Amino acid sequence: MNARTPAADLGGLLARRPVGQSLEAPFYVGEEFFGLDVEAVFARHWLFVAAEAELPEPGDYVTVNVGPYSVIVVRDDDEAVQAFHNVCRHRGARILNEERGSVGNIVCGYHRWTYGLDGKLLHAESQAPGFDPSCFGLRSVHVRSVAGLVFICLAEEPPADFDEVAERIAPYIEPHNLRQAKVATQIDLVENGNWKLTMENNRECYHCGGHPELQCSLFPIYGYAEEDIPPVLRPAYERYLKADAEARGTYESLGLPYEAIEELDTRTTGFRIQREPLDLAGESFTEDGTAACRRLLADFPTGRLGRLSLHMQPNAWFHFMADHAITFSVIPLAEDRTLVRTTWLVHPDAVEGVDYDLDTLTRVWTATNDQDAVFVARAQQGVTSPAYLPGPYSPTEYQVEAFVNWYVTRLKAHLEQ
Amino acid sequence: MNARTPAADLGGLLARRPVGQSLEAPFYVGEEFFGLDVEAVFARHWLFVAAEAELPEPGDYVTVNVGPYSVIVVRDDDEAVQAFHNVCRHRGARILNEERGSVGNIVCGYHRWTYGLDGKLLHAESQAPGFDPSCFGLRSVHVRSVAGLVFICLAEEPPADFDEVAERIAPYIEPHNLRQAKVATQIDLVENGNWKLTMENNRECYHCGGHPELQCSLFPIYGYAEEDIPPVLRPAYERYLKADAEARGTYESLGLPYEAIEELDTRTTGFRIQREPLDLAGESFTEDGTAACRRLLADFPTGRLGRLSLHMQPNAWFHFMADHAITFSVIPLAEDRTLVRTTWLVHPDAVEGVDYDLDTLTRVWTATNDQDAVFVARAQQGVTSPAYLPGPYSPTEYQVEAFVNWYVTRLKAHLEQ
Amino acid sequence: MNARTPAADLGGLLARRPVGQSLEAPFYVGEEFFGLDVEAVFARHWLFVAAEAELPEPGDYVTVNVGPYSVIVVRDDDEAVQAFHNVCRHRGARILNEERGSVGNIVCGYHRWTYGLDGKLLHAESQAPGFDPSCFGLRSVHVRSVAGLVFICLAEEPPADFDEVAERIAPYIEPHNLRQAKVATQIDLVENGNWKLTMENNRECYHCGGHPELQCSLFPIYGYAEEDIPPVLRPAYERYLKADAEARGTYESLGLPYEAIEELDTRTTGFRIQREPLDLAGESFTEDGTAACRRLLADFPTGRLGRLSLHMQPNAWFHFMADHAITFSVIPLAEDRTLVRTTWLVHPDAVEGVDYDLDTLTRVWTATNDQDAVFVARAQQGVTSPAYLPGPYSPTEYQVEAFVNWYVTRLKAHLEQ
Repeated sequence: MNARTPAADLGGLLARRPVGQSLEAPFYVGEEFFGLDVEAVFARHWLFVAAEAELPEPGDYVTVNVGPYSVIVVRDDDEAVQAFHNVCRHRGARILNEERGSVGNIVCGYHRWTYGLDGKLLHAESQAPGFDPSCFGLRSVHVRSVAGLVFICLAEEPPADFDEVAERIAPYIEPHNLRQAKVATQIDLVENGNWKLTMENNRECYHCGGHPELQCSLFPIYGYAEEDIPPVLRPAYERYLKADAEARGTYESLGLPYEAIEELDTRTTGFRIQREPLDLAGESFTEDGTAACRRLLADFPTGRLGRLSLHMQPNAWFHFMADHAITFSVIPLAEDRTLVRTTWLVHPDAVEGVDYDLDTLTRVWTATNDQDAVFVARAQQGVTSPAYLPGPYSPTEYQVEAFVNWYVTRLKAHLEQ
Repeated sequence: MNARTPAADLGGLLARRPVGQSLEAPFYVGEEFFGLDVEAVFARHWLFVAAEAELPEPGDYVTVNVGPYSVIVVRDDDEAVQAFHNVCRHRGARILNEERGSVGNIVCGYHRWTYGLDGKLLHAESQAPGFDPSCFGLRSVHVRSVAGLVFICLAEEPPADFDEVAERIAPYIEPHNLRQAKVATQIDLVENGNWKLTMENNRECYHCGGHPELQCSLFPIYGYAEEDIPPVLRPAYERYLKADAEARGTYESLGLPYEAIEELDTRTTGFRIQREPLDLAGESFTEDGTAACRRLLADFPTGRLGRLSLHMQPNAWFHFMADHAITFSVIPLAEDRTLVRTTWLVHPDAVEGVDYDLDTLTRVWTATNDQDAVFVARAQQGVTSPAYLPGPYSPTEYQVEAFVNWYVTRLKAHLEQ
Repeated sequence: MNARTPAADLGGLLARRPVGQSLEAPFYVGEEFFGLDVEAVFARHWLFVAAEAELPEPGDYVTVNVGPYSVIVVRDDDEAVQAFHNVCRHRGARILNEERGSVGNIVCGYHRWTYGLDGKLLHAESQAPGFDPSCFGLRSVHVRSVAGLVFICLAEEPPADFDEVAERIAPYIEPHNLRQAKVATQIDLVENGNWKLTMENNRECYHCGGHPELQCSLFPIYGYAEEDIPPVLRPAYERYLKADAEARGTYESLGLPYEAIEELDTRTTGFRIQREPLDLAGESFTEDGTAACRRLLADFPTGRLGRLSLHMQPNAWFHFMADHAITFSVIPLAEDRTLVRTTWLVHPDAVEGVDYDLDTLTRVWTATNDQDAVFVARAQQGVTSPAYLPGPYSPTEYQVEAFVNWYVTRLKAHLEQ
């Protein structure tokens, strides 16, 4: 009777999904599929939710809302990062109601049930004699920090391959000293589209003609196999080859890992990491490629480190430069609304107005995000039409295919459980 | 596929509900359960919807919207209160579109069908010869006034025990002369939570630490059995015992019924009534306990009557003091939005600015309602999380348990029909 | 469990619908029935969507959103009107995002896929060798222009009787030269009611007491059989008879077809057309009946042509006068929200401020539309009540019955497919 595809059809939709084409409409527009995505993807996989720099001191916390879940990520008295469901064990009230803050204990404002930073129930007034506080601690959520990046997993049993992934990506990231970094700023953007359209948008530069600011420092050959580079991009490719040779020398001499590892759809915790040069001055994502922060993140002998870029399924990407790092996390809000949270990290002693100008630091990616929000909204509007047919990916969109393939694979695995 | 529990599970949810714990999440967050609550609770039980004081003259009306229903409550030419569905018998247009007003006849603005205050169709233009106006009167709704409080019931056959309840509570209320009272003001508040969370919030004072204004005049021992009163509350309890002894003397000498009757979950029309002292000056819900209106509601020899408090399932509570009365009605708007309507009643000859100051009269309960709205919203947010587990009620929350027990019992009875 | 009637009940609802009464509530309030209306009515029948005057030059386009569909209506290089789904064949993005505009080619802003005005894919960058552009043209939508009025049909196989209807109505309309007309203005109004309540409202003048501006120039006998005209309307009827006799003489002498054809519910493309006099000066829909535009639409020897009125199922009505024409299209937005788009057309050389004053031109129907929006909203609110019962149509509402009968017939036909 209406556009929603019954859940019973899911198996069929997954089975018939052709390689190399965008997904059928129900995956993007259905309220039921949104619930499924939360259940099968966001409640089962490791999600990037914050930088450790957002919680520098014990008691510092952020709250993270993922679908119907609300999670407290907090630094405990031993300086470890913990995560708990933000739900009082008494009558279920949400406990911490700010996006971030600092607390001594975790106190529910409704009836003053009081929990420690380790989640234990410390106090609940007026209880009957048999009441056992040890049965009413906050429910914990799996949490891991990788080189200063905080991941949570809402599943009872998180994907087992995360340790291996962490081990492989940490050596790339650790030289950037993110555990000691500070947050320069964080910007939330709500895109009017399904979260998968947001991710697909991130996974190709076929649309980068629509990103004039980003194009300045980015070699416009992203996603192309060498033999597929179109003639118009040949000069840029030659420039890239020169910069790449120089960059490899720098990376080798500094002992910085740089080779691409690309396992986007061949494992549960899909990822891709690579260090590569930037265009122009080659230092940072600015309009002339020069550093946006005078104080580098670590004691690097040069600012020309290009970008270390990390893509992670299902919900994050990152760029780490010599002078600053940017994290991006994607959280679905509804089948057609998605939160993109962007965080800029700089050296803890960098001073705004002296070492960096906030507008210069954020200009390229703020503009790029805003442009992408328009693209994603148009994609959402378009696929909502019953006239929409899945179309073919260009070879340069192979990482979109990898994302979609990962997603379909994970849904199939979920259904088989 | 999503958070909604199929209707088929309702029986199971009801059957397994453990005594002494909050309800499972589907009762609070499901769109389907909202429809069920309207059908099984609000369309079957007696609802408090207005004070007679809101309709002083023939033709005065209020419209009351309950879920998808709209009802006209109107004083007819014989000064009786009548209630009709606010739906034209021609093509179904809503007839009266204001919250309150005064009319001679009830006229549909669309095609001018005209009904009397008794609901009879008086005129419909341009009808075919066989048209019989007596078949097209407004559909009536059951209505009763108890000591000036107007209740409606949308069911064909209302619960039969209402007469007995009315007979038992009327002697408590009648001395306050509400039929002659006037409305000082009425304030509507929309709480962002399920209506049951609003009711549960009303049924305990375990959270009254969050109500600094209310706590001034309220003895902080509400809901405690004597043996459960915590040491910190002992001084207040001693003060209460003294005030209570004095109050009983006053009540006896004035012939005012005061003993508690508590049948919250042992009958269809669950209720609790009791007259008891207030703290401080003991006269009214003000910050020092003194009267908020110089002109008392009746010819009482003293203003120190404390409060007569009435709780009624499913949707109301009341406080009647010597100087004024306050009525509270709760109407669900959606599974997560609830209207709380508060009405302050004073002596008909009391003059604003002379006998009472509106801000002083309303300050305590306006603040309390606003604080409760925050608690209810946090409870709604919390129970929406899949990590929410029903938690244990403290002994001081026994009336919350009684409300939930009443609700579960009524739903079971509805399913068995 | 809630107000929605399961789709399985549709057959029963259709089968038991009694002649001469309004529809049962589920047809107006159900989200599922909204989807059904889009599928069975709006995606299967010819819809009036624009006047050709809205696209005077090649490349001029309007976008039309019907339920989940978005359609581009564009004038091509051969000056023919074409229609395409507004969905890119690559990854489904909506292509044209303005309500109207002018383009050389149709270019998707996401990845620059470029289509001609004939819908052919002209360019798509970076494709794999086997890519065949001829397989990726825009999907076309059936489109027809009748005397300057543009109709589309979203079905694969449009109703076959449209040609015959076009042939019968075109001679009435063509004398008004709409193909050469220009748009004086267009006003969109969103009514808070189901689209069928909007159509029903349009199909009777039983409520015209609520339209003081419209009543001035409209003989108040609309919808009455002669024998049913109530005494109060007799003087108006006498005035009408006189004007009608004069008008017939004028129509005959000018060779303008005027006899009523009324096939509202006896064919798939239901319609009614008639030329008839207006009251007062008899020239136009103004408060004194005089022309609102000094420059007539065609080289008529008199401005006293009354109104040529056309009603079409499911979504349009029109009034063509000597001096201007007005088109009305109805597009459902949700089960309780409906777009009414009104367009005023004048001679292409008429100059605003000289030949016509925009406020005078639009005053009567802007006021009438606004009044109808109130009626429709009240009807929607009323039928949402479970206490609503279908009521009887007056004889003067026979066209409402015809619309409802057409609708029920088309739904039955849809179910039988």
